[in-house]
Amino acid sequence: MVMHNFNAGPSILPKEVFQEASKAILDFNNTGLSILEIGHRTPLFEGVLNEAVSLLKELMNLDSNKEVLFLHGGASTQFFQIPMNLLAEGKTAAYLDCGVWGSKAIKEAKLFGNVNVVASSKDKNYSYIPTGYEIPDDVSYFHYTTNNTIEGTEMHSIPQTNVPLIADMSSDILSTVMDFNKFSLIYAGAQKNIGAAGVNILVIDKNIVGLAGRKLPTMMDYKNHIENGSMLNTPPVFAVYVCMLTLRWLKKIGGVAAIEKINDQKASLLYNTLDALPMFNLPVAKQDRSKMNVVFTISDPEVEKAFLQTCKDNGMYGVKGHRSVGGFRASLYNALPLESVQALCDLIKDFAAKKG
Amino acid sequence: MVMHNFNAGPSILPKEVFQEASKAILDFNNTGLSILEIGHRTPLFEGVLNEAVSLLKELMNLDSNKEVLFLHGGASTQFFQIPMNLLAEGKTAAYLDCGVWGSKAIKEAKLFGNVNVVASSKDKNYSYIPTGYEIPDDVSYFHYTTNNTIEGTEMHSIPQTNVPLIADMSSDILSTVMDFNKFSLIYAGAQKNIGAAGVNILVIDKNIVGLAGRKLPTMMDYKNHIENGSMLNTPPVFAVYVCMLTLRWLKKIGGVAAIEKINDQKASLLYNTLDALPMFNLPVAKQDRSKMNVVFTISDPEVEKAFLQTCKDNGMYGVKGHRSVGGFRASLYNALPLESVQALCDLIKDFAAKKG
Repeated sequence: MVMHNFNAGPSILPKEVFQEASKAILDFNNTGLSILEIGHRTPLFEGVLNEAVSLLKELMNLDSNKEVLFLHGGASTQFFQIPMNLLAEGKTAAYLDCGVWGSKAIKEAKLFGNVNVVASSKDKNYSYIPTGYEIPDDVSYFHYTTNNTIEGTEMHSIPQTNVPLIADMSSDILSTVMDFNKFSLIYAGAQKNIGAAGVNILVIDKNIVGLAGRKLPTMMDYKNHIENGSMLNTPPVFAVYVCMLTLRWLKKIGGVAAIEKINDQKASLLYNTLDALPMFNLPVAKQDRSKMNVVFTISDPEVEKAFLQTCKDNGMYGVKGHRSVGGFRASLYNALPLESVQALCDLIKDFAAKKG
Repeated sequence: MVMHNFNAGPSILPKEVFQEASKAILDFNNTGLSILEIGHRTPLFEGVLNEAVSLLKELMNLDSNKEVLFLHGGASTQFFQIPMNLLAEGKTAAYLDCGVWGSKAIKEAKLFGNVNVVASSKDKNYSYIPTGYEIPDDVSYFHYTTNNTIEGTEMHSIPQTNVPLIADMSSDILSTVMDFNKFSLIYAGAQKNIGAAGVNILVIDKNIVGLAGRKLPTMMDYKNHIENGSMLNTPPVFAVYVCMLTLRWLKKIGGVAAIEKINDQKASLLYNTLDALPMFNLPVAKQDRSKMNVVFTISDPEVEKAFLQTCKDNGMYGVKGHRSVGGFRASLYNALPLESVQALCDLIKDFAAKKG
């Protein structure tokens, strides 16, 4: 059975990335050694890391004051590492509360300073992105989540602000053309558009490092990681290697602009299919729909169960909604081919015709 | 050319681990999916994690009050996470200063409380393990490094103490039979005897959790990781999988007792070879020699250079000493076959005969 992977993360990666990674575990670059057994302080791995850094700089079109880091941990580590580095005791940071992950980031920030939640969509189960809020000029930074993986909402423009802008882009990084240089800090926990799980990608403006003036553990201080080029200790070698392969693939197919076109096609196809069928409910406000995570439900629990079974029987993997919200979620990350979305749409239409 | 990998880390892993891991990247357990694209909250990955935990419990013969965790980061993360969790402000922890890594752990602990360095071998470049020191009964815990990867020393017995015992076993975990239950916390950053890089293995006594009484970031609190079974956030899936494969291999070949015998043979063979040749200097005190990392030097810089070239020409990888000490280091971790040590000894004897 052909598998179609709609999982929210870890998620599908390009087929050639799997092939290349599998080969490198047996013999990396014809060295006779596995990528898993090479020293990290060798030209072999330094080549991998350097290529990953320059590919990301190129794909994001980054200014020269931006540093790219590959760190241990996931986005959840950044939830506290950011305020630890950038929010001094007694100072205030502004946060937008748009979903489960953003609210977790808020909780961690409160351990280090004051938090001003400028707006929240919690009143309607995070089914929309708030507008009309103001970001004060005297806060240390403004933090938001560009795409809410669980709730299926996405911010389609960059907020206007005069303070350092920080974004969790874990689930939509490199999916859409945007001015990445507007951000003082971007972070993305693998594995969604970039893999594999077990590494955290940071794009950081050198000028904001040390903003909190706090004495930090060595491994928590961005300054140390920048000075040591992500090699303060043994990095997650294989995860960095898979990131590099994913970035290489993205460049080859034409970069962010090219993948955005395909992502638009995929999202339109699925949303249009679902919109046309009364059996399916789409809880997210239309203008805030995510192009990465399409969330939908079926009201009748029996029909819901039958739909999940049909997905399973037809190799549609990972369509079940997040355990905290239920229903369904189809994730359409960069590596998911249009053909998989077409196959899911065909299944949806077929199912609705039979059960509708 | 056949490669022999003596690298200090990341290091050699069993051949069958490479083969299995390579296969799982293309098709994991006949699912038609890659191990890199499966959801972590699925029976597929839960099976991997549970097997890794129970294999480690079995191989270490752990009591029921011990928890096994697989966390993000390396040992360097534990250098601060341990005192953050276990050393209250104003309280004192005792540390043994036996090498570069131990001294880094001491530096981080000082951020959280007082440190009593009970003994140090810094006076002689960490070339021996101090004895005759006392560990006070009123400290929060005692911390030491079982094997000093850079300096090539190893502690061959467990210190006597009435306080919680904490050990960094990054470079000799599972190499020798010992009573692992004597420790309140054992940690080991992959990748040496267990791989792949990008994961931290912890064995922790449930009773010491929360000892510092400090308010902690969610991701830093051992309690949260225990309650969530190492699944507080997306774990480093592939690194955990490779750990599981390595543990499975160790069990298959007879466990820690069986590998200890082979490790003893490998270390004796190499030390005896070097001891017999006046060209080579062994800086480490005989009784404290590491069975994992054999450190040696050649006085003449020209001959030193020639030896490194000979190693390179004959597929002996990673024999160069750590950048901070120079000379040579041959790491004889669990997965290194006796044949590789034999090949290195033959090369050493041959080289000495020609240049001696």
